[in-house]
Amino acid sequence: MSKYHVVTFGETMLRLSPKNNKTLEQADEFEVLCAGSESNVAVALSRLGLRSCWFSRLVNNPVGRRITNMIRAHGVDVSQVRWTDEGRNGVAFMELGAPPRSTEVVYDRAGSAASRLDPESVDWSVLKKAKHLHVTGITVALSPSCAECVTTAIARAKEDRLTISFDVNYRQKLWPPGRASEVLEPLMKEADVLFMTSDDAEDLFAIKGSAEKMVEAAAARFGTKWTVLTLGGEGAIVRAEGKTLKEAGHTVQEIDRIGAGDAFVGGFLYGYFKDDPDKALKYGLAMSALKMTTPGDLSFATLSQVLALAAGDNKSVKR
Amino acid sequence: MSKYHVVTFGETMLRLSPKNNKTLEQADEFEVLCAGSESNVAVALSRLGLRSCWFSRLVNNPVGRRITNMIRAHGVDVSQVRWTDEGRNGVAFMELGAPPRSTEVVYDRAGSAASRLDPESVDWSVLKKAKHLHVTGITVALSPSCAECVTTAIARAKEDRLTISFDVNYRQKLWPPGRASEVLEPLMKEADVLFMTSDDAEDLFAIKGSAEKMVEAAAARFGTKWTVLTLGGEGAIVRAEGKTLKEAGHTVQEIDRIGAGDAFVGGFLYGYFKDDPDKALKYGLAMSALKMTTPGDLSFATLSQVLALAAGDNKSVKR
Amino acid sequence: MSKYHVVTFGETMLRLSPKNNKTLEQADEFEVLCAGSESNVAVALSRLGLRSCWFSRLVNNPVGRRITNMIRAHGVDVSQVRWTDEGRNGVAFMELGAPPRSTEVVYDRAGSAASRLDPESVDWSVLKKAKHLHVTGITVALSPSCAECVTTAIARAKEDRLTISFDVNYRQKLWPPGRASEVLEPLMKEADVLFMTSDDAEDLFAIKGSAEKMVEAAAARFGTKWTVLTLGGEGAIVRAEGKTLKEAGHTVQEIDRIGAGDAFVGGFLYGYFKDDPDKALKYGLAMSALKMTTPGDLSFATLSQVLALAAGDNKSVKR
Amino acid sequence: MSKYHVVTFGETMLRLSPKNNKTLEQADEFEVLCAGSESNVAVALSRLGLRSCWFSRLVNNPVGRRITNMIRAHGVDVSQVRWTDEGRNGVAFMELGAPPRSTEVVYDRAGSAASRLDPESVDWSVLKKAKHLHVTGITVALSPSCAECVTTAIARAKEDRLTISFDVNYRQKLWPPGRASEVLEPLMKEADVLFMTSDDAEDLFAIKGSAEKMVEAAAARFGTKWTVLTLGGEGAIVRAEGKTLKEAGHTVQEIDRIGAGDAFVGGFLYGYFKDDPDKALKYGLAMSALKMTTPGDLSFATLSQVLALAAGDNKSVKR
Amino acid sequence: MSKYHVVTFGETMLRLSPKNNKTLEQADEFEVLCAGSESNVAVALSRLGLRSCWFSRLVNNPVGRRITNMIRAHGVDVSQVRWTDEGRNGVAFMELGAPPRSTEVVYDRAGSAASRLDPESVDWSVLKKAKHLHVTGITVALSPSCAECVTTAIARAKEDRLTISFDVNYRQKLWPPGRASEVLEPLMKEADVLFMTSDDAEDLFAIKGSAEKMVEAAAARFGTKWTVLTLGGEGAIVRAEGKTLKEAGHTVQEIDRIGAGDAFVGGFLYGYFKDDPDKALKYGLAMSALKMTTPGDLSFATLSQVLALAAGDNKSVKR
Amino acid sequence: MSKYHVVTFGETMLRLSPKNNKTLEQADEFEVLCAGSESNVAVALSRLGLRSCWFSRLVNNPVGRRITNMIRAHGVDVSQVRWTDEGRNGVAFMELGAPPRSTEVVYDRAGSAASRLDPESVDWSVLKKAKHLHVTGITVALSPSCAECVTTAIARAKEDRLTISFDVNYRQKLWPPGRASEVLEPLMKEADVLFMTSDDAEDLFAIKGSAEKMVEAAAARFGTKWTVLTLGGEGAIVRAEGKTLKEAGHTVQEIDRIGAGDAFVGGFLYGYFKDDPDKALKYGLAMSALKMTTPGDLSFATLSQVLALAAGDNKSVKR
Repeated sequence: MSKYHVVTFGETMLRLSPKNNKTLEQADEFEVLCAGSESNVAVALSRLGLRSCWFSRLVNNPVGRRITNMIRAHGVDVSQVRWTDEGRNGVAFMELGAPPRSTEVVYDRAGSAASRLDPESVDWSVLKKAKHLHVTGITVALSPSCAECVTTAIARAKEDRLTISFDVNYRQKLWPPGRASEVLEPLMKEADVLFMTSDDAEDLFAIKGSAEKMVEAAAARFGTKWTVLTLGGEGAIVRAEGKTLKEAGHTVQEIDRIGAGDAFVGGFLYGYFKDDPDKALKYGLAMSALKMTTPGDLSFATLSQVLALAAGDNKSVKR
Repeated sequence: MSKYHVVTFGETMLRLSPKNNKTLEQADEFEVLCAGSESNVAVALSRLGLRSCWFSRLVNNPVGRRITNMIRAHGVDVSQVRWTDEGRNGVAFMELGAPPRSTEVVYDRAGSAASRLDPESVDWSVLKKAKHLHVTGITVALSPSCAECVTTAIARAKEDRLTISFDVNYRQKLWPPGRASEVLEPLMKEADVLFMTSDDAEDLFAIKGSAEKMVEAAAARFGTKWTVLTLGGEGAIVRAEGKTLKEAGHTVQEIDRIGAGDAFVGGFLYGYFKDDPDKALKYGLAMSALKMTTPGDLSFATLSQVLALAAGDNKSVKR
Repeated sequence: MSKYHVVTFGETMLRLSPKNNKTLEQADEFEVLCAGSESNVAVALSRLGLRSCWFSRLVNNPVGRRITNMIRAHGVDVSQVRWTDEGRNGVAFMELGAPPRSTEVVYDRAGSAASRLDPESVDWSVLKKAKHLHVTGITVALSPSCAECVTTAIARAKEDRLTISFDVNYRQKLWPPGRASEVLEPLMKEADVLFMTSDDAEDLFAIKGSAEKMVEAAAARFGTKWTVLTLGGEGAIVRAEGKTLKEAGHTVQEIDRIGAGDAFVGGFLYGYFKDDPDKALKYGLAMSALKMTTPGDLSFATLSQVLALAAGDNKSVKR
Repeated sequence: MSKYHVVTFGETMLRLSPKNNKTLEQADEFEVLCAGSESNVAVALSRLGLRSCWFSRLVNNPVGRRITNMIRAHGVDVSQVRWTDEGRNGVAFMELGAPPRSTEVVYDRAGSAASRLDPESVDWSVLKKAKHLHVTGITVALSPSCAECVTTAIARAKEDRLTISFDVNYRQKLWPPGRASEVLEPLMKEADVLFMTSDDAEDLFAIKGSAEKMVEAAAARFGTKWTVLTLGGEGAIVRAEGKTLKEAGHTVQEIDRIGAGDAFVGGFLYGYFKDDPDKALKYGLAMSALKMTTPGDLSFATLSQVLALAAGDNKSVKR
Repeated sequence: MSKYHVVTFGETMLRLSPKNNKTLEQADEFEVLCAGSESNVAVALSRLGLRSCWFSRLVNNPVGRRITNMIRAHGVDVSQVRWTDEGRNGVAFMELGAPPRSTEVVYDRAGSAASRLDPESVDWSVLKKAKHLHVTGITVALSPSCAECVTTAIARAKEDRLTISFDVNYRQKLWPPGRASEVLEPLMKEADVLFMTSDDAEDLFAIKGSAEKMVEAAAARFGTKWTVLTLGGEGAIVRAEGKTLKEAGHTVQEIDRIGAGDAFVGGFLYGYFKDDPDKALKYGLAMSALKMTTPGDLSFATLSQVLALAAGDNKSVKR
Repeated sequence: MSKYHVVTFGETMLRLSPKNNKTLEQADEFEVLCAGSESNVAVALSRLGLRSCWFSRLVNNPVGRRITNMIRAHGVDVSQVRWTDEGRNGVAFMELGAPPRSTEVVYDRAGSAASRLDPESVDWSVLKKAKHLHVTGITVALSPSCAECVTTAIARAKEDRLTISFDVNYRQKLWPPGRASEVLEPLMKEADVLFMTSDDAEDLFAIKGSAEKMVEAAAARFGTKWTVLTLGGEGAIVRAEGKTLKEAGHTVQEIDRIGAGDAFVGGFLYGYFKDDPDKALKYGLAMSALKMTTPGDLSFATLSQVLALAAGDNKSVKR
């Protein structure tokens, strides 16, 4: 048995959010949360019963320890975090909107310790203990040394015969679409499972048309074994080994949508490891829907909730 | 003048609930509330201006006193509570869902002081000071001695010429439907007013069809003078002395649906005591709707709010 | 350059509101906010970059200072506030409803220091430093001396060649509609910009029919250069120099609707000062919509949010 | 058995207090509490197991109901409250100091409904159901009609053979010491038990010297059977039927001192009813000390805590 | 290298505590914490950089997961927790006193899942991966099967050549002193390090006199290599291999004393593993003092804080 | 009349602090405050009735606006703030200790917008509208361009005949003492009023001995007209025009000591402007003591509180 099902890495910031629909300018208190696409996925996987390992580079101060504790609380292995005494940890001030007011994020991550993660400082032997590597486009965008980490990780994973998933996760506040598509494309082609929003497919790669057309075009272009497009409120679609499956999303009373995409990835990978694209979609969408009903980036769903919702049970009160 | 309009009894637990849509596993704080179908009804009646008396068996510690204080704050007479120094008070950890996440209750009531209430320890002369007895199926399910209390109460009430209402209130976490229907049916037949959800009517007694058909079938089967079916979002229907009346529910922004059924019972009984089935339905539905807009099991509606809403006034701002 | 774009005055109360949908009777804590139509407008204007001055009469105690601080925080000039050591500051206990429960306000403002503002105590030379005066019907209703202040202000503003806006803002808890219409009509006729809800137009002045008909009738009756009717969820309509423009409102997840009308006035005046009725409507509706998505009377919107929403950008997440 | 041990009446205000040592000007939230010397005593007595009845005059709005609920929660009979639809309920904004910053109260009680309580509107037959009447000097100071209520209550109590306690409770914000002493002296002479701080004894009645001298002088001057002086941090002293007893106070970590004097009165009366001056002092001081360790005016102590502390048990942790 | 420095086990309850010095009966919210002597020690050790493993038996519901997450957040290995679907998790309602009001705990642990831990269900091979076993007298008191677990653990640890520490931790709410001393004595004699309060030494084993006399008597009686007495505010004393060392405690502003003894054990063991009785005492007292300055049972101190405080650095502000 | 009494400038950070004595690593919520020595002084002065102007360089995002609003709320003129769209605003994570746990600050200010304030971007004509300039050693330490701003400001102030105060405010996290003393000394010599802690006097300038000796030595060395040493709990001492005055501090229940030094400066300058060294000391110490009793950097004291406390009135309750 491998020590880990999944290894992942990337920056996790302290997330500070007002409560009760207040704006950042207005709130007298901020909730202390954490925000990082890869640690969100690691937590999601751990909650579903898989062994996941996440790491980043963090300053050893209360902020850095707090971030780590929040992730470790869910059972994620954080022993590979690179600790430093210098620099600062990234912070994301996040204000949840209510329509038509948008959710706004004031990123304060420039020059963070995480952005200085470099391939030499990582103990890549951790991959030998895992079955699967998960990486995202955010890390590629953070800094040249972070991008090198992704390249190195993918190369090592290939050597060590891990499967690989890649989530495009385009962030316009980090880089322009033209640059992103150019840099990401070769990395995406290395993945066994590729995740992308349909918006990113269109904005970065000019892939257009019906969901079915788009997922087929993406699968063809990137040559990934499983290619997944998330469709916002419309659900998700996967092209897996020549077949296309589409599934509608759940009707959701949205409390906090941040992290829903990562919860989807966690749920989907759970199904992917069972080699069942239908279940992968259903678990992904259930995880995503459940995440949206709770505050914070992290999923608090349990496997039994996910299985029940994926199977169509959504009774409003259980007693 | 009787000292009490209504006497009722049954377990009331300490209810602990996260705020702001958090899950039980996630929340750093729980709100301290109380949860008990019968005390909910007693509070609802007291707020509408009727004199109600509720009792249970409670441990004389801060938890037990807290429960009692919360009920007494609304004017309910709690002088008949049986206090003990031994054992524990029931607790309900309650997490409010947001669709598609369901509301979940972790009941921690096994072996509670209330479940050891027995007919010998009660001063049944309290019924002589009242006009009406209200009991529910939950108490019947709690324990043999609790069930005996219900039987005793009904028998005494008959002797003392009180009218009786019975709310089926089926709880699948307490007993299976087959056992429930068998035990409850004879007790239901003793009631002047019978309350049931349409789901319970179907699941326990295989009563099916349109609301009208169902309420007629129920009235026929149980022989109750007034037979009431609540229809979830569809409103409620009553069969009263040979006539059937149906009323649609209000459109509600649901904040906390727990206790809405009990608030309905409180409002309905207010109309029942005026011998007006139409008003009973309207008051019940207004109470139920208003309850759903505030957190906690207990109604904070006032008679004037109920009369206004029942009369169709639902202006969004009053100033 | 004038020192102020806009001068306004009127009572601002301490607003105390429960959180989390609780009722006033239920809440263990009240949020400390402030409530005053004119200061709401002054804050809205200041946030959009205009120089506004608001004053009232307040007791120099922590409550009075708190009210002033909250308004001054947004850059409004409060140097003209008349301070007194005697009396009390008005308080508004405000409970936000959830349908069908209405939002309720327990006004506790009778005999407040503000209601004793009188024309002799004001330094009217402040108007000479401004371009525009904004007043509302609430102040007229508060007391004879307050009404005199409005009359005096309008007369002085005319002399000093300021433009004038008047918001009818009828409050049934302060005076009956017949009395209001009689007293307000001559004042309304002095305004360059007149704001009214369509409900007030009908209830006070028997102006009926389609929005277009109503705004034309109002423009004709009061002879105001710009006449604005707000239409609740339907948006708003303006009759400006012979032309009628109507604009639909935004779809809003309502968090707190109190102050939305004042935010509209602030946004509209911003467009009025640019002499653009179309933009005035759009800015007003954007400000109003954004206000409804945050708690408290005061707007926390920024000019860039308003411009974006007015231009149709309402992306749900920005990152 | 009498229905009530003690009847009392007087104004109870909504008390609004910042948390966490904030000032009123600074706090974003106020805790909702209640403040009234007589209801504080009624609650203290009820918690010790005595039947107490308190009334005032209140506006029937959420503020008035809230005040009543908080008192009723502790088992005090509030059925004699005079409800009105007009006017306002008194409010006390209370900021807890930390040395050298003093605790400050912004009273907002002028013209309150309670200050309009008059003897005609009260059903004095309530006294016939009681053994003891408790009144305070605050009520005498509130308004002529309130003062008349005190005079009437004392006269009726004498007729109905109740014993009477009187707490001087001088408030400099309500009246000057010369006026207070003149008006209060004849009323104090009617009491069986007289409570006064040593400061009030000196400031109002020029009684000076050692505690022993002072209590003897007071007993002689007012002719009361039991005469009690509270001595701040020094404890309390009683002159009862010719004997003087003094008791030191407890060392206290003060959380909120407001209401400590009323808790003392409650505890003392509990001992007085047992005709034991020594226990009366000890229970009073224990109640007072325990009150100071919890926030809010109301005592949350239990009889067993009081008995234990009065007996010298003050272990820091019980487990 | 061993996988674990220390293995420990015992019941951890959900701890619910009011904030801001409120009583349990008074508080509207409870903070959600956890309480368990052994998990407190495991957390303390983990924070100091040692690898610790703690287990108990818990119901797999949100309460059980929450308890586990809080412990795991600090890096404690919880993989050996025995999960069950039946029964209930223990709860401790804990109210922090302020002198002279005592801290009160309402234990609600009877029949908890943890009390049903039995030696058969544990995978004792975990001990083979550790250097040291820590157990307490609480577990012995919980139930016969729990006591058997302690006996079994000690026997296995001896076989596997682990060192052993035993903390007497007498709880009068669980068993009488006579029974405790009888049952505990043989177990205590198996320990390498024995922890006891001086109160327990006297109440259970009639060991009296000066701290020096007491620790020598205890060392002689139980034959433990290192024998430690904690002396409340006076500090602590150790008899280690024939020498006695005593150290005064720090002056502390006590915020929450619960868990201070366990923090002491954690700090002491850190020094014990370095075979330095002087440092052991200093680290223990520093950990204990720091724990008392933060709310909750768990230590949030860091190794550098402990080293600094143990070395006498207690500057009030660092910036 | 000058427009401003005092102009000051320097970095103000967003201050994030746990509540209820929690550590940064532990807290689930942070209070949103602001921290900046110069803005603290500006607020203190404004609260005492003086016109103060403060500026810094801030990013125009919610964090920057929030900081500005909090300062402006107290009446400080913030019109000279230099706004930028690029970069980040400084953040200070601040955890209040309880002895022996120290107060810890995690500064996250490196590369902040404020540290890029440079003399060219400031409109120094603001000094022409003022009587007095206040600067601190913190600004000198932040960056070369910030240091240049201080030099420029002092030079311009001299030209424009403003008086100048300088607060050494040494921060070891910013620079070493040797470098600080070298750079600061020439600037200190330009001041009319010089503030220093006795610790800084010793650590930076090797000034030792009794307070009297130290202040005389400092006055001699720096040649300042008024030279002030603050002595921690011992009070403060001033050497003013050849005379030395010393005053003891108040006994304080410390809630939050951060900002107390700045409050002292504010109070002292109030007395300095009245040319009264005795009052200056008393006002400074009163302001400082009052600040320590409230949370946050900013003073919420009023002039009347300061006058009363300076005159020795510290009654514990006022009612």
